[in-house]
Amino acid sequence: MIVTVTLNAALDTTYTVDELVPHYSHRVRQVHHRAGGKGVNVARVLAELGHPTVVTGLAGGPTGAAIRGGLGSRLVDAFVEVPGDSRRTVTVVSAAVGDATVFNEPGPAVPAEAWALFMERFAVLARDASVVVLSGSLPPGVPDDAYAELVRSAAQHGASTIVDAQGEPLRLALTARPDVVKPNATELRGTACTDDPLTGVHRLRQAGARTVVASLGDKGLLAVTDGLAMRAVPPERIAGNPTGAGDACVAALAVGLAEGVPWPELLREAVALSAAAVLHPLAGGFDAAARTRFRPVVRVEPLGPVCDGAPA
Amino acid sequence: MIVTVTLNAALDTTYTVDELVPHYSHRVRQVHHRAGGKGVNVARVLAELGHPTVVTGLAGGPTGAAIRGGLGSRLVDAFVEVPGDSRRTVTVVSAAVGDATVFNEPGPAVPAEAWALFMERFAVLARDASVVVLSGSLPPGVPDDAYAELVRSAAQHGASTIVDAQGEPLRLALTARPDVVKPNATELRGTACTDDPLTGVHRLRQAGARTVVASLGDKGLLAVTDGLAMRAVPPERIAGNPTGAGDACVAALAVGLAEGVPWPELLREAVALSAAAVLHPLAGGFDAAARTRFRPVVRVEPLGPVCDGAPA
Repeated sequence: MIVTVTLNAALDTTYTVDELVPHYSHRVRQVHHRAGGKGVNVARVLAELGHPTVVTGLAGGPTGAAIRGGLGSRLVDAFVEVPGDSRRTVTVVSAAVGDATVFNEPGPAVPAEAWALFMERFAVLARDASVVVLSGSLPPGVPDDAYAELVRSAAQHGASTIVDAQGEPLRLALTARPDVVKPNATELRGTACTDDPLTGVHRLRQAGARTVVASLGDKGLLAVTDGLAMRAVPPERIAGNPTGAGDACVAALAVGLAEGVPWPELLREAVALSAAAVLHPLAGGFDAAARTRFRPVVRVEPLGPVCDGAPA
Repeated sequence: MIVTVTLNAALDTTYTVDELVPHYSHRVRQVHHRAGGKGVNVARVLAELGHPTVVTGLAGGPTGAAIRGGLGSRLVDAFVEVPGDSRRTVTVVSAAVGDATVFNEPGPAVPAEAWALFMERFAVLARDASVVVLSGSLPPGVPDDAYAELVRSAAQHGASTIVDAQGEPLRLALTARPDVVKPNATELRGTACTDDPLTGVHRLRQAGARTVVASLGDKGLLAVTDGLAMRAVPPERIAGNPTGAGDACVAALAVGLAEGVPWPELLREAVALSAAAVLHPLAGGFDAAARTRFRPVVRVEPLGPVCDGAPA
């Protein structure tokens, strides 16, 4: 099975207003709630792809209950309860413009005991997991080396790891040698301190990641793994909702790792699935017909052998 | 006792962000929740003034529970449960500018049975009430003549009524002959179809209100009651948070009606309390020292006798 971890689960609320005008009062025309957090969105894609997925992480209070109640029947809820109330994100969509303005709450402070309990439960799940996905921000109170600790625990129990994070939690996770890290362009620039993606990817490998898959928007994926660099490029520029594209990419990576798919084929699927996710209005979903259509036309180009001195 | 009615109770949430920029993602620095809705704010002021107050209205779901849990020990909670989840309002405050952008959810749809149950419970409360305050918007499902019906029910049970509403619910309430209506300038213009406040106030009396007290911001109050027109003007232009000024005014009117205070004295207190509320950061509070300071310097001017043909 695949396990996705969402330490800062969220109830994603969308407000539709006529037009967002700062400093004014707005009548909200429509309110829509959805269980969210990157790990939950990855799990939705995995369920859609027919992969049994366990979702865990930290959730609490009435908002936590709403998140867990909204997971649907296909995801196994293994969230660990925390004392505070889980966070919301509020996305304000202007009906006139179709554009989105987002407000992300920080999340409840997690006491040390709740974090210790989560680590225990995680170890139990990791024993049966082929792949563990660690996605998104950390709530206050969870230590910055949380993903590093979870990568080590997963490795001890024989599970592969994918880390989709940024900042200090990503930097520390690298030291624990995760199987895959998937930064986007901004995260790569911020962590590797360079504007050149290929240099950045090499630096993240040198810092400890076995494979780095950077998602560069409509430029596709740039991947470097043991001795091999590749680029996978979508067939066209896709217009739509880019919110869930990264989560769809991570889902494809998780399936590929779980099934031992060779990298070129795996990247082809990851690009096709990401592009199909852009065509879907909600994060965690994808346009199945578009995925099938895109797959054969994704260009996968080897960038030649790599001697970057990364730890083997 | 005084009863305040909040049919569309809200959990007022405030997000502090660095600066609100449309179409961008914002990290919310602080999240603050408070039980709200105009009737709840009026009741807070009444409690602060030492008046036993019962709050009723419609609330439901986890958000309703949070609203009721946040009423504090001084208010008597007589809310009626509805099946849906109560609404939130989200106010985004830019720390840089100190300005507020507000999003008001519409509220849960109220089924006919819940409305009928509320009407029954209201009649029981009205029997022991001296004054009933009907404030704010109606949730979906509650009929537009809700305030008209409640005014009639209150009158049958011997309670005086104050209506602070707008649009069709206010227009219909007038036909039930409420004791006082308190429109602000915008509501007066919208309901009386005139830009002249004095003409507007007369029209609302002709439509059925016994007394009309229009709150005109820093121009103070304009009141017309049986045979008497008055203006009450604050001593100075008060800078601050105007959100709760109207609710403080309504609280003063409720106390005045309950205690049979003569109108000139009552209006003096209403202006002083409203101005003191502007100096308080939260709706439902007021600056007690400022209230005492303002009271003797409010100017109350008679506008002469009135023969407007209003029903006696």
